[in-house]
Amino acid sequence: MRCKFCEKDAYIRLHYPKMLLCEEHFIAYFERKVERTIKKYKLLKPNERILVVVSGGKDSAVTAYVLKKLGYNVECLHINLGIGEYSQKSEEYARKQCKQMSIPLHIVRVRELLGKGVGEIKGSRPTCSICGITKRYIFNKFAYENGFDAIATGHNLDDEASFIFGNIMHWNTEYLGKQGPILPGEGKFVKKVKPLYELTEREVVAYALAVGIEYIIEECPFSRGATTLSYKQILNQMEEKSPGTKINFIKGFLRKKSLFEVELKEIPLNECKVCGMPTQGERCAFCRIWHLDEPVNFKI
Amino acid sequence: MRCKFCEKDAYIRLHYPKMLLCEEHFIAYFERKVERTIKKYKLLKPNERILVVVSGGKDSAVTAYVLKKLGYNVECLHINLGIGEYSQKSEEYARKQCKQMSIPLHIVRVRELLGKGVGEIKGSRPTCSICGITKRYIFNKFAYENGFDAIATGHNLDDEASFIFGNIMHWNTEYLGKQGPILPGEGKFVKKVKPLYELTEREVVAYALAVGIEYIIEECPFSRGATTLSYKQILNQMEEKSPGTKINFIKGFLRKKSLFEVELKEIPLNECKVCGMPTQGERCAFCRIWHLDEPVNFKI
Repeated sequence: MRCKFCEKDAYIRLHYPKMLLCEEHFIAYFERKVERTIKKYKLLKPNERILVVVSGGKDSAVTAYVLKKLGYNVECLHINLGIGEYSQKSEEYARKQCKQMSIPLHIVRVRELLGKGVGEIKGSRPTCSICGITKRYIFNKFAYENGFDAIATGHNLDDEASFIFGNIMHWNTEYLGKQGPILPGEGKFVKKVKPLYELTEREVVAYALAVGIEYIIEECPFSRGATTLSYKQILNQMEEKSPGTKINFIKGFLRKKSLFEVELKEIPLNECKVCGMPTQGERCAFCRIWHLDEPVNFKI
Repeated sequence: MRCKFCEKDAYIRLHYPKMLLCEEHFIAYFERKVERTIKKYKLLKPNERILVVVSGGKDSAVTAYVLKKLGYNVECLHINLGIGEYSQKSEEYARKQCKQMSIPLHIVRVRELLGKGVGEIKGSRPTCSICGITKRYIFNKFAYENGFDAIATGHNLDDEASFIFGNIMHWNTEYLGKQGPILPGEGKFVKKVKPLYELTEREVVAYALAVGIEYIIEECPFSRGATTLSYKQILNQMEEKSPGTKINFIKGFLRKKSLFEVELKEIPLNECKVCGMPTQGERCAFCRIWHLDEPVNFKI
């Protein structure tokens, strides 16, 4: 089974578009796709300073790797969430990845910064919600205080398609109006972009393997054993029977996204009394969750 | 395993709401649900003349049966589509059902009326499209000319959920703004209602069995062997893991339906030059497909 473009053996069979590619041509295909995604959705300008949030997993590492290879000015941030051995191992992978890629790595450790891990906060919110708020706050404030123009995350096609699918199944359409490959910056919110928006999880894994990126495979202990139905599995089933389902689902969504924009409310934002970051109330969710009386700072 | 409400053995296990019911209590549950659907969505008024379009299948027969049992003024119409043995058998079932239910049955035979079966029209449209246009035209004009107040069809929860699901997967959202348990009448379009809107296919089958309605099981030869992915199967998988998925999907859709109404275009309608029925062009799709020079009439 030969590569579509040369005499070499096929490394991977892609189903949409349908083709066999050798390792070298797959790498080229993958990187060109990232490049075209950036161009198509106007994610990044050539000289912007980009912060890639690396978790130790495959998606964020591949994002950093490809952006650097495409010539972008990239630095990485790892947030150690203080979830025991899992966070320790994640940090080790992030360090190893950045060293291998020769990309500067910044590390913020939640336990050192705030006294506890994200799993140890007792309150009304589930851990995954606390973790999400904490991560988003840290990487945004870190990028803002240190003058980054964009935050790049590793969200891939499977993540995006399953997010939209799940929200549509529950008709939580108010989350959809802002969903997409780019969330423009505004005030103290730094622009957020998703360079792997059109690449499947399978392609990301194959790329990581091809270029020799190692990554943590374990899932977070808080998400482990979740019995909720996996929307990714359902989409993969549909993809298998009708190749192109996921990418066409996402592209169709983007065409029709304006239908959901009417549900976006113009909420007037205040400055958090503690940290000065934007919030709907008096104090932002981050400062409330962590019971802060003074702001945390990330200025390098 | 006992019925939730009495000492009898369970006839069926419902998953959402979760309960075991004997035959008698299941029949009562089913009929009450139809009654509440009619009330909730304001489908019908007590004295309206209702035309139920019976195909020979289970859904339309159950619709006619329950409406009559609830005291509505019901007549049935069977459209023989002229698809060989399949149509012959369908008509036989429709006759048998209406005789058993003591409901007046009208029959329109496409071959007698138009000279050909729906599968014999050669043109640019697929047979299923020709068949759909033909059926909708006939039952609407039949109802209109004979003074019926409403047309009731047998669409069940599985039909509705899979229709919306499929259109969302392809983002054909322009079909969604008009979708629901009732399509109000307007001009020469007679009101259309779906009394089984909140009942699953499984419940309809169990009801038909319980009350002794026999029906055609074969599928139409034109739909047989379709390799397209079955959205019903996917929804059933999700339903199995999370009971209530289908009904909540439908209810959520109805809550958010107005989002899609912006896509409904106000198309000015003309009267078809041949038959006088509403159309966007000069001649309606029915008269064009069947190359008619004069109108077909259904006045009893």
